[in-house]
Amino acid sequence: MTAAPSSPPPARRTATLLVCCDDRPGLVAVLAQTLFDHGVNLLDADQHTDVEAGKFFQRIRFDWAADAKPDPLEAIGNALRPVAEGHGMSWTLHDEASRSRVAIFVSKTDHCLYDLLLRHRAGELVCDIPLIVSNHETLRPVAEQFDIPFVVTPVTKETKPEAEARQLALVEEHGVDLIVMARYMQILSAEFIAQHPSRIINIHHSFLPAFQGGRPYHQAHERGVKLIGATAHYATTDLDEGPIIDQDVIRVSHRDSVAELVRKGRDVERNVLARAVRAHLERRVLEYDNKTVVFD
Amino acid sequence: MTAAPSSPPPARRTATLLVCCDDRPGLVAVLAQTLFDHGVNLLDADQHTDVEAGKFFQRIRFDWAADAKPDPLEAIGNALRPVAEGHGMSWTLHDEASRSRVAIFVSKTDHCLYDLLLRHRAGELVCDIPLIVSNHETLRPVAEQFDIPFVVTPVTKETKPEAEARQLALVEEHGVDLIVMARYMQILSAEFIAQHPSRIINIHHSFLPAFQGGRPYHQAHERGVKLIGATAHYATTDLDEGPIIDQDVIRVSHRDSVAELVRKGRDVERNVLARAVRAHLERRVLEYDNKTVVFD
Amino acid sequence: MTAAPSSPPPARRTATLLVCCDDRPGLVAVLAQTLFDHGVNLLDADQHTDVEAGKFFQRIRFDWAADAKPDPLEAIGNALRPVAEGHGMSWTLHDEASRSRVAIFVSKTDHCLYDLLLRHRAGELVCDIPLIVSNHETLRPVAEQFDIPFVVTPVTKETKPEAEARQLALVEEHGVDLIVMARYMQILSAEFIAQHPSRIINIHHSFLPAFQGGRPYHQAHERGVKLIGATAHYATTDLDEGPIIDQDVIRVSHRDSVAELVRKGRDVERNVLARAVRAHLERRVLEYDNKTVVFD
Amino acid sequence: MTAAPSSPPPARRTATLLVCCDDRPGLVAVLAQTLFDHGVNLLDADQHTDVEAGKFFQRIRFDWAADAKPDPLEAIGNALRPVAEGHGMSWTLHDEASRSRVAIFVSKTDHCLYDLLLRHRAGELVCDIPLIVSNHETLRPVAEQFDIPFVVTPVTKETKPEAEARQLALVEEHGVDLIVMARYMQILSAEFIAQHPSRIINIHHSFLPAFQGGRPYHQAHERGVKLIGATAHYATTDLDEGPIIDQDVIRVSHRDSVAELVRKGRDVERNVLARAVRAHLERRVLEYDNKTVVFD
Repeated sequence: MTAAPSSPPPARRTATLLVCCDDRPGLVAVLAQTLFDHGVNLLDADQHTDVEAGKFFQRIRFDWAADAKPDPLEAIGNALRPVAEGHGMSWTLHDEASRSRVAIFVSKTDHCLYDLLLRHRAGELVCDIPLIVSNHETLRPVAEQFDIPFVVTPVTKETKPEAEARQLALVEEHGVDLIVMARYMQILSAEFIAQHPSRIINIHHSFLPAFQGGRPYHQAHERGVKLIGATAHYATTDLDEGPIIDQDVIRVSHRDSVAELVRKGRDVERNVLARAVRAHLERRVLEYDNKTVVFD
Repeated sequence: MTAAPSSPPPARRTATLLVCCDDRPGLVAVLAQTLFDHGVNLLDADQHTDVEAGKFFQRIRFDWAADAKPDPLEAIGNALRPVAEGHGMSWTLHDEASRSRVAIFVSKTDHCLYDLLLRHRAGELVCDIPLIVSNHETLRPVAEQFDIPFVVTPVTKETKPEAEARQLALVEEHGVDLIVMARYMQILSAEFIAQHPSRIINIHHSFLPAFQGGRPYHQAHERGVKLIGATAHYATTDLDEGPIIDQDVIRVSHRDSVAELVRKGRDVERNVLARAVRAHLERRVLEYDNKTVVFD
Repeated sequence: MTAAPSSPPPARRTATLLVCCDDRPGLVAVLAQTLFDHGVNLLDADQHTDVEAGKFFQRIRFDWAADAKPDPLEAIGNALRPVAEGHGMSWTLHDEASRSRVAIFVSKTDHCLYDLLLRHRAGELVCDIPLIVSNHETLRPVAEQFDIPFVVTPVTKETKPEAEARQLALVEEHGVDLIVMARYMQILSAEFIAQHPSRIINIHHSFLPAFQGGRPYHQAHERGVKLIGATAHYATTDLDEGPIIDQDVIRVSHRDSVAELVRKGRDVERNVLARAVRAHLERRVLEYDNKTVVFD
Repeated sequence: MTAAPSSPPPARRTATLLVCCDDRPGLVAVLAQTLFDHGVNLLDADQHTDVEAGKFFQRIRFDWAADAKPDPLEAIGNALRPVAEGHGMSWTLHDEASRSRVAIFVSKTDHCLYDLLLRHRAGELVCDIPLIVSNHETLRPVAEQFDIPFVVTPVTKETKPEAEARQLALVEEHGVDLIVMARYMQILSAEFIAQHPSRIINIHHSFLPAFQGGRPYHQAHERGVKLIGATAHYATTDLDEGPIIDQDVIRVSHRDSVAELVRKGRDVERNVLARAVRAHLERRVLEYDNKTVVFD
């Protein structure tokens, strides 16, 4: 944005700590002290307590000189382990140098796929996308434009178990951390989902819990609503019932046919899905009680 | 807004024609010609065809010199009658000089009531409000501040039939055209509703059809949605299933307790209800197939 | 919505009539009658009167059997000519079978270009796009993906007159009706603009009239606004002062750096530009007094 | 949410710490440790660093048992003083038991006043409102309905200095912490403003910086914008140039006359002003570089 400095700034590395546990006094202090003791610099710290549920959540993003010896990240991990054990914390420490690996699952509809790939190329979604999986050939040319391997695993009632086995193998083989269902029009089996807890994001084309299931725009048109929406959520074994990450709506009127709802809805779907994926990649999402905490 | 004219403009009267019928060619022309033949001036004409349902809708607002002789409104009515019969039209002709009479039903919550009364006083809702009906004494002081009669009809399981009979008598006695349920926390009986088709507007504190029934903010909190909403609809015998007139939403987050949802929801409820009542009073709403056409 | 009809429906053609003139009684009637007399079927009729300015605006969309003899469209044009003359109307009659021809001007930024091309391919923007013009080579691969000729006309202070002459020649040669400046970072000369009145749409990356001129996101960040926006407008010789077609905003906070504003702004820019182009193509925009009427 | 506890919970007190200083390592840790050392419980901790400006901001809300001896709040203040000095912090420690005292300044328009008073009564704005000041008698009945003293200080060009002297004396006398200009149509003098830095909130009826100065709705109508807005900001000696606390917009169209813009704008004005006042009262606003940090 500004004039280039005369010499490069000392390179810095960045990491994010996410913590969730039962609420108790002193949690913020102990975490801040642990990080401070290792000489890192806090960039953002956000904390939330669900008083009713008695749950504590924190996200801390910090950086340090890339040439620091010894590497503070490993030391912090070692220091946090006993702290976390003592407080019954579940926690993750994410080194931003280690990019998430995302597989995108699609069917025939291209707007969410294009949106994710363009945002990825523009640097909005910091991750690697080692493969796109589909049950149809339709979107292969899109994948090719972006030089991403495209694998077709046709799914019929009979072949679904094999197709999912193949998909799981691909996911495994490519070291995938996150599956994004970008209008993938197949229902994943409970077995598939169980293998990727909180690691599958789906976009449903309605404002959930209104209009669950199939053909939500038809349902919305039939009911005569004045807003339509989209919902990004983690996939769970209960269809359309998973923890909601983000939602949005757009105004419609009596003038809008189902086809117009589909058209208007596309803009909402792609924005909501992209926001949810971005939040997940930036480690701003914590899941509990079938809900989410999404830090800004 | 601008400098006062040296002499008063010739007074004009205004009326609105609303038409609904099966679609067929020539409807716009025949209506426009009928109005033109009687020398009135069209201010706004909006038309919609639901191609799928084969339905035609039109709203025309027009004015004329108040001293025109003979009165064109009566003549237009006479001219429209055979036209409407020939085309199977249902139609209403509303003289703006004849103000609607609105009864507001409330329980203990005051935000929607205050909002309606303040908008009424500010001239945003052109109508008379001859009475406020409640099942509790709580809001009597509000009614008194605005000099509107306040009638309490206590409702228990046992007394409901009598209470409704009393309410219907009051509505009849005061020549009420429209009942607005401004967070009236009682379910009207099918008999009551049947006597006022398309003339009872209710505000439900959720984005219908999500979270029908009781305690919608608790339901929304439990589900972990990222937007909450409100829905104004005509009351029908199917609870929360009536034709939707307007809806809106507001963003919420994990930080919002149920109490916060209630607080944020109040702003949406009052705005949505006021918009729906205003649209109804301005004859911008047409109902069909359990949906609405709401002209701008 | 989906069941295939047993035989194809008789093909129909569709056209849109746009009218603007000084307000006077009978305009709606005379237009409706003229159309009715030629046997066409009105699909949508929207009308607006600016009482203060004394201006009348109407948009009528109608269809007819494609095999009607003689062609009603030509007959309607002939019938309207004397009517329009008598009432001082300016009018256009647009046959939807005759697609608009759109040239997109770009520089190095791809989000608006991709958005327009994807919407075009999805059928949201009904037009032909015979060429993309740029002052840089950067986006040639995008044009190639969509098989659209891409012409580079480099612009420097010295070569601007020649570059514009070349651009005008291209526009002429390809029969272009509408130029869309999709983040084209050059200011068109008054001469260029004068040759395409109301036929150049620009997207400015701020909520005009706030933050006119260069680097609007920097200006917005400096001022500390809580919403950023985008504005699509017809280009005029007064930079950023042309008639506004559409605008929208998105919420930002103290957490957003200029880079974040740029990122969030992209979503608003592309949506606003696409909506404006779509409205123009569908003949829903009328211009007067440096403002627009945009029918729904 | 609803089940009554068998015995009342031990009463707790709550306070908010706001800190602003040049960024440097260890700030979060030292603050968290200081609070933890005094046995209080953190409810919410939000932190922001403006990397470009090198500024650190933190808000921490915490509670403790009301019967704790010695009172931790005083002890925390004593402990923070040297810390703050060492780090060049500016800070405030706000005991929620000590309610802010707010004076509302109005002229003749009642919608913002009513809105503030109703929200105050509903518990949305936790403060005392010891007086309402106006340059007109118009709104005295509103003040009386809410039992709040109403003082008229007529302002003419000649009497403005005396009027302001009287206003300042009233503000002093009533121990006022915050002045809310709820559509008070007078410009405060630089002297007046200087005596209440960051303690005067004004609502401007446009999306600043668009349409500064008088008659913003007329300006907006003239320009033909498609959105109108409102801006709540701290008053500074540069009119309409103070730090923005909150803003919002609403969609308008060619159908909206200036009077309609005024009507629609009222809803935005009152909501934006109320949100800004609430944020200020909850100590969620920090001011720097003529901008604000507003924590969620």
